[in-house]
Amino acid sequence: MSDPYAPTADDRFTFGLWTVGNPGADPFGRPTRKPMEPVHVLRKLAEAGAWGVNFHDEDLVPFGASPGEREEIIGRFKAGLEETGLVVSMSTTNLFSHPAFKDGAFTADDPAVRALAVTKAMDAIDLGASLGSHIHVFWGGREGCETDARRDPRQAIKRMRSAMDFLCDYVLEREHEMVFALEAKPNEPRGDIYFSTTGHLLHFITTLEHPEMVGVNPEVAHETMAGLSFVHSVAQAMEAGKLFHIDLNAQNIGRFDQDLRFGAADLKGAFNLVRLLEGTMGGFAYHGPRHFDAHAYRTEDEEGVWEFARGCMRTYKILAERARAFDTDPEVIGLRQEFQEDFVSPLLIDYSPEAEAALREMAIDPDALGARGLHLEKLDQIMTEYLLGVRD
Amino acid sequence: MSDPYAPTADDRFTFGLWTVGNPGADPFGRPTRKPMEPVHVLRKLAEAGAWGVNFHDEDLVPFGASPGEREEIIGRFKAGLEETGLVVSMSTTNLFSHPAFKDGAFTADDPAVRALAVTKAMDAIDLGASLGSHIHVFWGGREGCETDARRDPRQAIKRMRSAMDFLCDYVLEREHEMVFALEAKPNEPRGDIYFSTTGHLLHFITTLEHPEMVGVNPEVAHETMAGLSFVHSVAQAMEAGKLFHIDLNAQNIGRFDQDLRFGAADLKGAFNLVRLLEGTMGGFAYHGPRHFDAHAYRTEDEEGVWEFARGCMRTYKILAERARAFDTDPEVIGLRQEFQEDFVSPLLIDYSPEAEAALREMAIDPDALGARGLHLEKLDQIMTEYLLGVRD
Amino acid sequence: MSDPYAPTADDRFTFGLWTVGNPGADPFGRPTRKPMEPVHVLRKLAEAGAWGVNFHDEDLVPFGASPGEREEIIGRFKAGLEETGLVVSMSTTNLFSHPAFKDGAFTADDPAVRALAVTKAMDAIDLGASLGSHIHVFWGGREGCETDARRDPRQAIKRMRSAMDFLCDYVLEREHEMVFALEAKPNEPRGDIYFSTTGHLLHFITTLEHPEMVGVNPEVAHETMAGLSFVHSVAQAMEAGKLFHIDLNAQNIGRFDQDLRFGAADLKGAFNLVRLLEGTMGGFAYHGPRHFDAHAYRTEDEEGVWEFARGCMRTYKILAERARAFDTDPEVIGLRQEFQEDFVSPLLIDYSPEAEAALREMAIDPDALGARGLHLEKLDQIMTEYLLGVRD
Amino acid sequence: MSDPYAPTADDRFTFGLWTVGNPGADPFGRPTRKPMEPVHVLRKLAEAGAWGVNFHDEDLVPFGASPGEREEIIGRFKAGLEETGLVVSMSTTNLFSHPAFKDGAFTADDPAVRALAVTKAMDAIDLGASLGSHIHVFWGGREGCETDARRDPRQAIKRMRSAMDFLCDYVLEREHEMVFALEAKPNEPRGDIYFSTTGHLLHFITTLEHPEMVGVNPEVAHETMAGLSFVHSVAQAMEAGKLFHIDLNAQNIGRFDQDLRFGAADLKGAFNLVRLLEGTMGGFAYHGPRHFDAHAYRTEDEEGVWEFARGCMRTYKILAERARAFDTDPEVIGLRQEFQEDFVSPLLIDYSPEAEAALREMAIDPDALGARGLHLEKLDQIMTEYLLGVRD
Repeated sequence: MSDPYAPTADDRFTFGLWTVGNPGADPFGRPTRKPMEPVHVLRKLAEAGAWGVNFHDEDLVPFGASPGEREEIIGRFKAGLEETGLVVSMSTTNLFSHPAFKDGAFTADDPAVRALAVTKAMDAIDLGASLGSHIHVFWGGREGCETDARRDPRQAIKRMRSAMDFLCDYVLEREHEMVFALEAKPNEPRGDIYFSTTGHLLHFITTLEHPEMVGVNPEVAHETMAGLSFVHSVAQAMEAGKLFHIDLNAQNIGRFDQDLRFGAADLKGAFNLVRLLEGTMGGFAYHGPRHFDAHAYRTEDEEGVWEFARGCMRTYKILAERARAFDTDPEVIGLRQEFQEDFVSPLLIDYSPEAEAALREMAIDPDALGARGLHLEKLDQIMTEYLLGVRD
Repeated sequence: MSDPYAPTADDRFTFGLWTVGNPGADPFGRPTRKPMEPVHVLRKLAEAGAWGVNFHDEDLVPFGASPGEREEIIGRFKAGLEETGLVVSMSTTNLFSHPAFKDGAFTADDPAVRALAVTKAMDAIDLGASLGSHIHVFWGGREGCETDARRDPRQAIKRMRSAMDFLCDYVLEREHEMVFALEAKPNEPRGDIYFSTTGHLLHFITTLEHPEMVGVNPEVAHETMAGLSFVHSVAQAMEAGKLFHIDLNAQNIGRFDQDLRFGAADLKGAFNLVRLLEGTMGGFAYHGPRHFDAHAYRTEDEEGVWEFARGCMRTYKILAERARAFDTDPEVIGLRQEFQEDFVSPLLIDYSPEAEAALREMAIDPDALGARGLHLEKLDQIMTEYLLGVRD
Repeated sequence: MSDPYAPTADDRFTFGLWTVGNPGADPFGRPTRKPMEPVHVLRKLAEAGAWGVNFHDEDLVPFGASPGEREEIIGRFKAGLEETGLVVSMSTTNLFSHPAFKDGAFTADDPAVRALAVTKAMDAIDLGASLGSHIHVFWGGREGCETDARRDPRQAIKRMRSAMDFLCDYVLEREHEMVFALEAKPNEPRGDIYFSTTGHLLHFITTLEHPEMVGVNPEVAHETMAGLSFVHSVAQAMEAGKLFHIDLNAQNIGRFDQDLRFGAADLKGAFNLVRLLEGTMGGFAYHGPRHFDAHAYRTEDEEGVWEFARGCMRTYKILAERARAFDTDPEVIGLRQEFQEDFVSPLLIDYSPEAEAALREMAIDPDALGARGLHLEKLDQIMTEYLLGVRD
Repeated sequence: MSDPYAPTADDRFTFGLWTVGNPGADPFGRPTRKPMEPVHVLRKLAEAGAWGVNFHDEDLVPFGASPGEREEIIGRFKAGLEETGLVVSMSTTNLFSHPAFKDGAFTADDPAVRALAVTKAMDAIDLGASLGSHIHVFWGGREGCETDARRDPRQAIKRMRSAMDFLCDYVLEREHEMVFALEAKPNEPRGDIYFSTTGHLLHFITTLEHPEMVGVNPEVAHETMAGLSFVHSVAQAMEAGKLFHIDLNAQNIGRFDQDLRFGAADLKGAFNLVRLLEGTMGGFAYHGPRHFDAHAYRTEDEEGVWEFARGCMRTYKILAERARAFDTDPEVIGLRQEFQEDFVSPLLIDYSPEAEAALREMAIDPDALGARGLHLEKLDQIMTEYLLGVRD
């Protein structure tokens, strides 16, 4: 019998070169694993059942490589893609590792840094496009501060807008079929990062010249670090048609960026996220890549890395199966649709004196509404039992 | 010699009836203070130097009061306003205390609850308008959940939008000179509240039928609970022309909603906020009410409440004085304007092949940029010394 | 077939009168449920399968009740215990609800408050003892501050010690068979509570006159609020022989005290806790009451309260079953016992020059140790799959 | 006129080689500064006014250096100490950087790792002793886990105890005049670190064979990360005679370990800490080293590093001056000593039926106690104004 949780191309699972390739260094410790060759990563990802791969410019081509080196690296990678059948599902620009960006890239006070950042981004966009990427992510990891003593944050917002507008025009000029996906994070590595949540970015996008070209790339760990509901942020992005990409992992609230294996913390949050993405919770589903932006514990060798990668995909598929079961359980459907007759929504479509009068004339007893039980303990316990696999 | 920190009407300091009138109950303890008569509050606020007063509908008129009681209460309050010269700077609807709203008001699944909420809001808007309020705040304290098992959060977003659109039209129909200010909070009293940050609300506003009528009312405690930079959220709202009102208080990260006296925690954050609001940090200033949405410790009697109120205003004025001194200190100006010649912004206004070429031709040495010191420890220490009053 | 997850007396599940009896008020909302009669609670708890019941003095006998009222209430409650067969597994003193304790009970600056607190505690101890309680819990919810401006925290520590020593002697004098269990919480309702964690209390106990009479009562929510590992704190208490009682519930990090249904958040943490308590993880098990110090969502009516109570017990039993399965899985045992031959522990029992020499002479290759994989991704994924019920 | 805030030897200010020598790498960025020669650090520290210096073994002697290299390095460093007059105020063992310790040092499952850790610690103790250190710190940065799937935390506690007992005996055997100071941290780099707070360590110490040789080294950032009151933890350590060393810096709650310049966040917390350490708050003062375990922002070059170091010391001295002024202000003294006559403490010294009777006979009116104001808003505002320098 075939494994129902074995990944297939239809699952659109992807990994970044920097995720499975993470060498296991941390602020207090040296690397525990050796760097991996990109083509080796492609082969192992394909073997594990992934559909796509992502990269920062520097994951593939070292910053400052000569044109010849660049070409050779790209050629080797293209061959690897062909050999494995993996697609490049996303590309991104590393604007955080080099010391030049230590006080920001697009938002730096020094115009030379901003020029460097925009140039590096144009090159990374071209690199991504040349390898088939249609989504370019911008994570502004350095766009922030440890002190507001110097930069007015409004200045930072304006600079970020200017850079995004410029780069959208660049994509149009180059005729790349590419959109941007912006990724929020509240802090780390900076004390505070501008546009700290997906909500802040969703608003920022509405102020751009080409808002239709720009969406968001929410990451579980980033929203969770601040204790915010990731599900609610993703839902707002989906409702706005702006969920262009997603970074899946796990994280405990109030900690350094952990990037744990999907499902390794907060299984319930992961379950509700999968319900939302798979469309079982209601509304429509998300059809883009399921990207695991996570890495193996530092305790692992390469074998452990591939255990980690398989675990991410397997847990997602188990949760997807449970999501379908939960949301089609007749008892659950009954509890979720308790208030069938929605006599108010039609009145609220447009204000009119008649609608107002109709609302005011309803004989509503607030105390009766307050006393009635809503069955949410029951529903949440049923959900828990679906998670635990004692109900199906 | 007159006290330079004594509040005046120009300072636009305001308090809510529920703030100084807070009786000191908490989840584990009964009230320690007696309720205060609204007119008594007006007199004491005027005496303390406040400029305005705010209220929830229920702070003034009990839910379910008869038309006669309502009229009498309003008459007495109007007389109090005239006597004291205080203005009503903001009004709001209590959509969280009554058990009917236990699972949401505008976002509740039960249409009867939504009808009740919209009706109550219309009444509260009229009450506010009749007393001179031009800003009506919506804090959706109950618009959230403890479990996502039932309600799709996208449904909640749509319902909230529908209610806001309806109420905007209501204000237009009534010809009130009134705008709305939406207030975010990540959690408490609900496990998770929809639109968890000011950023999420700023985006939501762009999706309304009358976005020009709706802004935000950020609160120090609410953004700080999640460890987000309040200054950055307020800056984004100001940059977008959406800072319609502000709730000042103090809060420690990662805790229950503390609503402490302004400046009682995170003096540095308070200082940067004042720099932003007063316009010394750069850009323009905020000219709306400075509302202290805080309350005295539960250990205090009424005398302590007025100490608390005076402390809020006094600390604000001390910080405003320091803000002006810091941002006009020649050494500070020098450090803040280190990069005078901005040769990049003009190139980024519009993409063109020429602009691209100009950017690419700059001889930028990333390593030199990375090695240069940015003097931020010095600048932050100078700021600290302004705060501590050892430099002026 | 009988339900394998139906609770029995052997499970030692208990609830407090204040937990299932919680009326659903919160800082922003009025009660949504009616108070329940204690004897009604006993009957419903027995029906649900609980083994014991707990109470604060005031849950049973209102503060200031006359001796006659007190006696009558106690008589009725005793009859209820007999009727239902429930035991009183724990008693405690409410030293937080009355305004008198607003700045502390045992640690208050006012000696009259401290006298009141000690007297109230003696009465509550007697009340508990008279109903068969052998464990008296002290949760110092008010023993803290919003500002350290006045009280030296060392003074608070000394006062707490003095009260505990006095009350231990009181128990000995009265010849009650009773021990104390101290419960830590970092904050709420106070800005900061003294002895913020179970660790702080474990140390404090070692400084008492009768340390053997005093242990701890850790609560999931309290340790979790601060993002600390509850499992590690409980483990330290167990290793020290000090786990006298435990409060089970669920909580999200960095929030107000949520007291959710057991398992309603952080299923993995709950699983490891159950592994520890049931003794499957290793070492010995905990044999005291499993107390669910939680309450139903405010959205529920009484029916929802009993759903909640059943859910707590059911989830515990499912996790206990999984714990046994996980820790007896041969693959798991193999991975957990990877380093069978412990050649170092014997050397570290006592220092000697010979032991030192033996350690120094080992040919250890640090780099080889660093390169080896530890299989923790695999083991954690297996644990996840036990949790999800796809492996058994 | 001389600068009243210039540091002197009496201030006992110290820095670690790794603090001012920090090269500014972080999890997302490469170093921005060059490593500094230890002797250069000594000279610059002396110039800045520091009294002492600290180091991990590896800060001075690279792991795996030959005996000859080791001797040469030590000789150079000794000469530097003599030249500058700096003392070695603390030494410590790096048991976290090398990959061998990736799953723990003293608590690792692999006995070879534990042997390596104990051996490395013996060497580091000898190195410290040879340079005059009388305090050896143990920060168990790797003693924790990302998953509790494998190691029973009770096993980790036992292993840690065994190592500490062994190393205490080693110090006695070697006749070093040296004590140990244990340093807690809740997480980072591990998901959870055992002994997550100073409280947990204070308890652990009571279970050792030589508790008199072991105290704690609390760090502002570590306790603050979890949102715990650092002042309360330090107070408990002082009350127990266990504050052997202290790590001063600044940190925002709920974030990665920031190690900011002293006073750069939470000025009020810093102020209360200084009140406690300097003995102005009450009780006795702390007389050990004031160690700034912090580092300059990554944006700084070496000049910024020394600005940072001077800032740490300067802010401490400003706060110490303010602490003395605040705690000797007659109004403050009056407010702090509101309850002069302590008629209860004598009764609580020992339980007796007479003491009980005396307590029970007091005519205490709880409602009157609850209604009285405690002047804490006033006192906290006075404290704020001392901090802001508008009162002296």
